[in-house]
Amino acid sequence: MFKYMKKNSKKFGTPPGTLIYTGESKKLSYTISLISYNVENFKSSSYSNFDDFENYFSKFKNVNDNKQEHSKSNGINWIQVEGISNIDLIQNLGTFASIHQLNLEDIVSVNQRPKFEEGEDYVLCILQIPHYNEDEKIISYSQLSLILKNSLVISFEESKNIYTKTIKERIELKKGRVRSMNSDYLFYVLIDIIFDGYFKVIDILNEKLEVLEEELITNPTKSTLNELYKLRREILFLRKLSWSNKELVSNIYHLDSKLFSKKLKPFLKDVYDHSVQILDLIETKRELISTMLDLYQSSLANKTNEVMKVLTMFASIFIPLTFIAGIYGMNFEYMPELAWKFGYFGVWGIFIIVSVSLIVYFKRKNWI
Amino acid sequence: MFKYMKKNSKKFGTPPGTLIYTGESKKLSYTISLISYNVENFKSSSYSNFDDFENYFSKFKNVNDNKQEHSKSNGINWIQVEGISNIDLIQNLGTFASIHQLNLEDIVSVNQRPKFEEGEDYVLCILQIPHYNEDEKIISYSQLSLILKNSLVISFEESKNIYTKTIKERIELKKGRVRSMNSDYLFYVLIDIIFDGYFKVIDILNEKLEVLEEELITNPTKSTLNELYKLRREILFLRKLSWSNKELVSNIYHLDSKLFSKKLKPFLKDVYDHSVQILDLIETKRELISTMLDLYQSSLANKTNEVMKVLTMFASIFIPLTFIAGIYGMNFEYMPELAWKFGYFGVWGIFIIVSVSLIVYFKRKNWI
Amino acid sequence: MFKYMKKNSKKFGTPPGTLIYTGESKKLSYTISLISYNVENFKSSSYSNFDDFENYFSKFKNVNDNKQEHSKSNGINWIQVEGISNIDLIQNLGTFASIHQLNLEDIVSVNQRPKFEEGEDYVLCILQIPHYNEDEKIISYSQLSLILKNSLVISFEESKNIYTKTIKERIELKKGRVRSMNSDYLFYVLIDIIFDGYFKVIDILNEKLEVLEEELITNPTKSTLNELYKLRREILFLRKLSWSNKELVSNIYHLDSKLFSKKLKPFLKDVYDHSVQILDLIETKRELISTMLDLYQSSLANKTNEVMKVLTMFASIFIPLTFIAGIYGMNFEYMPELAWKFGYFGVWGIFIIVSVSLIVYFKRKNWI
Amino acid sequence: MFKYMKKNSKKFGTPPGTLIYTGESKKLSYTISLISYNVENFKSSSYSNFDDFENYFSKFKNVNDNKQEHSKSNGINWIQVEGISNIDLIQNLGTFASIHQLNLEDIVSVNQRPKFEEGEDYVLCILQIPHYNEDEKIISYSQLSLILKNSLVISFEESKNIYTKTIKERIELKKGRVRSMNSDYLFYVLIDIIFDGYFKVIDILNEKLEVLEEELITNPTKSTLNELYKLRREILFLRKLSWSNKELVSNIYHLDSKLFSKKLKPFLKDVYDHSVQILDLIETKRELISTMLDLYQSSLANKTNEVMKVLTMFASIFIPLTFIAGIYGMNFEYMPELAWKFGYFGVWGIFIIVSVSLIVYFKRKNWI
Amino acid sequence: MFKYMKKNSKKFGTPPGTLIYTGESKKLSYTISLISYNVENFKSSSYSNFDDFENYFSKFKNVNDNKQEHSKSNGINWIQVEGISNIDLIQNLGTFASIHQLNLEDIVSVNQRPKFEEGEDYVLCILQIPHYNEDEKIISYSQLSLILKNSLVISFEESKNIYTKTIKERIELKKGRVRSMNSDYLFYVLIDIIFDGYFKVIDILNEKLEVLEEELITNPTKSTLNELYKLRREILFLRKLSWSNKELVSNIYHLDSKLFSKKLKPFLKDVYDHSVQILDLIETKRELISTMLDLYQSSLANKTNEVMKVLTMFASIFIPLTFIAGIYGMNFEYMPELAWKFGYFGVWGIFIIVSVSLIVYFKRKNWI
Repeated sequence: MFKYMKKNSKKFGTPPGTLIYTGESKKLSYTISLISYNVENFKSSSYSNFDDFENYFSKFKNVNDNKQEHSKSNGINWIQVEGISNIDLIQNLGTFASIHQLNLEDIVSVNQRPKFEEGEDYVLCILQIPHYNEDEKIISYSQLSLILKNSLVISFEESKNIYTKTIKERIELKKGRVRSMNSDYLFYVLIDIIFDGYFKVIDILNEKLEVLEEELITNPTKSTLNELYKLRREILFLRKLSWSNKELVSNIYHLDSKLFSKKLKPFLKDVYDHSVQILDLIETKRELISTMLDLYQSSLANKTNEVMKVLTMFASIFIPLTFIAGIYGMNFEYMPELAWKFGYFGVWGIFIIVSVSLIVYFKRKNWI
Repeated sequence: MFKYMKKNSKKFGTPPGTLIYTGESKKLSYTISLISYNVENFKSSSYSNFDDFENYFSKFKNVNDNKQEHSKSNGINWIQVEGISNIDLIQNLGTFASIHQLNLEDIVSVNQRPKFEEGEDYVLCILQIPHYNEDEKIISYSQLSLILKNSLVISFEESKNIYTKTIKERIELKKGRVRSMNSDYLFYVLIDIIFDGYFKVIDILNEKLEVLEEELITNPTKSTLNELYKLRREILFLRKLSWSNKELVSNIYHLDSKLFSKKLKPFLKDVYDHSVQILDLIETKRELISTMLDLYQSSLANKTNEVMKVLTMFASIFIPLTFIAGIYGMNFEYMPELAWKFGYFGVWGIFIIVSVSLIVYFKRKNWI
Repeated sequence: MFKYMKKNSKKFGTPPGTLIYTGESKKLSYTISLISYNVENFKSSSYSNFDDFENYFSKFKNVNDNKQEHSKSNGINWIQVEGISNIDLIQNLGTFASIHQLNLEDIVSVNQRPKFEEGEDYVLCILQIPHYNEDEKIISYSQLSLILKNSLVISFEESKNIYTKTIKERIELKKGRVRSMNSDYLFYVLIDIIFDGYFKVIDILNEKLEVLEEELITNPTKSTLNELYKLRREILFLRKLSWSNKELVSNIYHLDSKLFSKKLKPFLKDVYDHSVQILDLIETKRELISTMLDLYQSSLANKTNEVMKVLTMFASIFIPLTFIAGIYGMNFEYMPELAWKFGYFGVWGIFIIVSVSLIVYFKRKNWI
Repeated sequence: MFKYMKKNSKKFGTPPGTLIYTGESKKLSYTISLISYNVENFKSSSYSNFDDFENYFSKFKNVNDNKQEHSKSNGINWIQVEGISNIDLIQNLGTFASIHQLNLEDIVSVNQRPKFEEGEDYVLCILQIPHYNEDEKIISYSQLSLILKNSLVISFEESKNIYTKTIKERIELKKGRVRSMNSDYLFYVLIDIIFDGYFKVIDILNEKLEVLEEELITNPTKSTLNELYKLRREILFLRKLSWSNKELVSNIYHLDSKLFSKKLKPFLKDVYDHSVQILDLIETKRELISTMLDLYQSSLANKTNEVMKVLTMFASIFIPLTFIAGIYGMNFEYMPELAWKFGYFGVWGIFIIVSVSLIVYFKRKNWI
Repeated sequence: MFKYMKKNSKKFGTPPGTLIYTGESKKLSYTISLISYNVENFKSSSYSNFDDFENYFSKFKNVNDNKQEHSKSNGINWIQVEGISNIDLIQNLGTFASIHQLNLEDIVSVNQRPKFEEGEDYVLCILQIPHYNEDEKIISYSQLSLILKNSLVISFEESKNIYTKTIKERIELKKGRVRSMNSDYLFYVLIDIIFDGYFKVIDILNEKLEVLEEELITNPTKSTLNELYKLRREILFLRKLSWSNKELVSNIYHLDSKLFSKKLKPFLKDVYDHSVQILDLIETKRELISTMLDLYQSSLANKTNEVMKVLTMFASIFIPLTFIAGIYGMNFEYMPELAWKFGYFGVWGIFIIVSVSLIVYFKRKNWI
């Protein structure tokens, strides 16, 4: 379940713009990586301390700035931040890159609604990375905030994930066109791969659903119901997120900013199509589950009905017979039938007649 | 429950613009506080009588007016009214600040829909402050009306609340940027903290919901159902309010008025995002509850089915056996089996055969 | 229930514009009242005959017309028609005030959808006045059509009602500002008071609902269900009307006509807010009722489950015991146990063991 | 049920614009009537053969054309075609009046969605005439296509109907204003009367519904349920059609074409209001039916609950008693109670105590 | 079921624009056909190898190009590709016709949402062809991608289908107007026939539905329920697709491109109407099915109620009688009634009185 809420009360009463990390992780350590690349070169370095990073960056920048101002081969810088629980780091980075205080507040408020905002000379995009947790059978989410500012991309990652790692490798190994494109393409490619992550999670839910569907038709149990309920709840949250995601991508696509080159449009259209497709798939799953629950309900009613029929038949046939047997078990002194020679066989005759008539009656009612 | 309605009939047939307090509180006492501040100074005073307040205010204003007309350091005045059941007070204040009669009527009609209106040279914003009442397990609401008129903010509070108190402290203690900003920021900050209050209430509902969910899966009782029902009702009202709140903030954000400076825009965007998030959370809770009720229904049907199976098995096995025993309890004079040496054991054989076949039959039906 | 339909077939096949009264009242008598007023003067007279009215009106108008053409003190004329079943009257009045034939048709077609139309030099507004009928426990509606044409307001009332009476008194007794305002304010005030009537009816429904809710939680019966159903049906119709009402007021508010002065805008905004609030309240009631019905269903399922448990326990414990007793009631000549000294007490032992084990079993299943 | 689909597969694979009659009627005979009228004159003639009609029409037209070109008294021609299963006829008429091939295809594809299209110099309107079939308890539909082209109106009727007949009479007998208006008024009047037909059908459904509602509250049976289901299905289709109808009329109303004179606007507004009212009524019926089905479900659950209570009480009281009687029916040689003088009366005492306690217990549970 | 998802995870992590065939077919063989035609000529040839095709095409083009540049009789070329699992082929064709890499990626990603995109000098339309699989009782889909680029149309077909075959025949045999129209008409005609395919599938579903409806009213079984569930699921997917289809056609219709001539507009309008009608039909089916499931549920509850009544009556009548018989089966030494002469007959009297009273009681309760 998306733990949207849990820690919001932490923030109650603080003035707007106060940075408060609302996540669970307690450790304040972090890693800042700087990936600098252009068509020819690729450089990557990591720091666990903001000052080291700043020193390096300013030196490195100066060298570049003098030579290649505003040229395409100027190179793209991607600052990748892993771990956002350290408020000081975020504040420093925010000051370093001149990010608005309210935006910094959003970056450290994890479990946020996906969000896209235009700052003065940058854009901010906050996404949730879904991850299916096989043990607890829930989807957990970790937050990824992306800032695009000219040739600089900053990513704030709540926790380590394979998505940014994959992109890093792709850059290093010159896979795809990322090396030959601008920083906006890197920004796009980071969003695109998160959406691939949604497809992956939906894929997993789909498999679960197929297993449950099979179970439901052949032999539904209480645990089928409980799992279906859990899945439904997960999909409910996933759907909320996907709506926001779709809206977010639509906002990026329709944004009129010089940060995005015209060449990127078809790619943004593509990622928008993906967001629509994700929503479509989730809606379909949602309707499928509610269809499955209806089927479960009907099957159950059906079963109860069958159980009732069995009970009714046994009871309706044998209770009258028992009564008849009961009659001749009475100890009255004067009971003429008892002395009849064929009394006993006569009673058997009655037994047979009564039970056969009742069976015929139930057959006619289509109960057997 | 939001007591929206209860006292509306009080107003029936009165001409439009008649001030009628529709709340419950009978006492007519009130407190007017005047908080005057700018970056350097902070002054606060309280009155329980309108005339005293007016005297002070006009004197105080005159002094200021001469010196610092229209200058930024002119200072911001916040008139905080606690208790709105005294109609005379409201009428006097309304005349004092030139508020339209229909707006005054709205201010004293408590249990109103959240509302934002633009007057001639002021704006009016009416909000509901939610408060979770732990005893009655309902959310109660108290009304807060805010007027922004140049450097003046007036707040009308149905009852004492921690929200305005928090802001007052923040101003006094120079927390955040409120002291260095204009009156529109005070207006914003008062709205923003009410929305924090919604988050707080949702947080409480969330906890209740998690407890109920746990109960529902392990051992649902009738009281689980009743509490779920109560929660659902509360959320139903909360949702209505949140829709209105969202609309209200959207109206403020898109308002083109010189009362709001350009610097406030990102803050209004932020409070708008909060209103959307609140609505999102409530919608999610609402869907979750209806999902939980479906689960409850299915579980119950499941249980009934199981109870039925137990009954059916017991009845179906023992009723035929009792019948057979009944047969040999009859007192016919001529019943050949009774005299057979192994008649009794033969009957035991029949008992065992019948019951074993029935057990096998139920096993095959998957009832055991 | 809103008898929307009942008499529509009366009109089948008639050419458009044919006046046919579709209401129930058979008597053709009517009363025309003429209320003429300005700030200083107030005159009122009644007629039960159109010719008398016309004579008086033309005389009276001539006198006025000469002196005070187009002046504000010219006075406002309110022609109040009670009883619209007399087609001739309506036709005459229509000709007298130059109303379009299709509009006249609408005025006499009672049980109409609320409707607002702009004619050449007038506007027409058709409303339904709700009235809660305590005996039949339904809401009945009576139609009110209002025409505003310069300084003239005409009201067509299907039946006597307290709403127009209240306004009449208010004018006579100079309550509120109606005497000092123009004819458009009279038009507004007539609409406004009808909306107060909706609040009143909702108030009554609310009380019924609270009683039913109490009943539902403590001791629901079949009559609770039937009353809930009736309420739901009434609310269903009320909701339809309220949607139309809201739309209607929105149309008036956004109308760009010289019939409405700029001064009226805040009042129209106010009545629009009321229409939205009415709709909100009704929607809330509607959702509440469907929530209550769900609760009813679940409670019932719960109860059935409990009844089943009691049955199952009694049957499952005593049926096996009866069988055992039945065994030793058999009359076989050779039944060794019968002769045992402690046979009888042994059987009692079996009885106790069997029943205790079953009780333990049911306890474990949480059925006791 | 609206047999929307049945014959669509007939058309599979044929090139667009191929005329294929998709209705049921096999006979190819038809009647073409020509009604020519203006304020003074009225002429009507019928043909069962297209050539005869064409001969007459061209002659008749020539005479007129010379004299009264473009004058108002030129007269209006209404070509009324009864029976559209003869493809040749439609093709001929289409060529004669220069109708687009795709439009002709629509005219002969019966069971279509209501449709309004603007051709080069004409408009086409396709409607479904509803007819309640009392025997099968379903609504059947027959298609009516209307073409308006200058002073010419062509109606294509799938089968004879009272609607066009009524209009014909009205023209002949000079009822209403149809004789004094233009061809667009005839077009309007034909649409208007079809909508009256919808009111009529809704009226009938309404009566059925009231009977069913009465039955549902007093004594619901399985046939009540089946009829309700049938009604619901009919209303489901009717609703689809009414949505299309509303859209259609809205298109006509907003069309900016010289085919429609300004004088017609209020009439088109009126027919639009009717279409909205029809939709409103149907929506109300639909919601009412689903409310009724909920009531049915709840009543049924209630009844089952009551049946269960009766069973449980009988079983729970008598099964223990039977067991006790069974004990003393055992034949053990040593059973001390049997010899006690008041044993028998003692047992009776036990019977009474047990049954009274159980009755008290059930009373407390509110089951009796 | 639409296997939307299954292979999406294949693509995870690959850079955007990577061609990956996501379908099931493993074989890499394909057929390229070239159909060239104008009003007079028709030529058709097939290749199983891209190079052969390219050779032929370039030669053939050269000859034509010299003579008839930009003339209408220049002829239309339709490249029909059957089998899209061979990535090399698609890449070659893409390069050959200058298709954007992201579009090629879409063409080989089968099980896509229907999609319409405008490229630089071409348009791309991706559709799903439905096919009802009688054995598995599901609808399977195969993808068809269409490219229109001046006088060239390229179709990519996932698998052989009758739809393109029909069009091919129609061109060859000069059926309809396809030979005399431009390449945009061919593009239209290919889309139109796919929509006819949807009608065909809906027709089949309709038949299934009618059979199930019949079964449901007369004698519903568990398999009825399961089939209904399957149908519902199929319709759920079909509905998603139809929404996309409608949107797609609307996009084509409103597109302002020189690729589509003005003459095509009425045809595009027609295909749009079809897409709306398909959606309408599917929505109707969907509502019908949910109506049918409600009926099923109610019928089942009804049946259970009836079963319960039978059980209750049998049990309630015979259990008390058995108890009475049990009393006189007791072996107390002193039981005065046993010695009474008419004791036995007296008991019979009691039997009759008890059972008759109970029968009367149940009759009054309307259970018999």
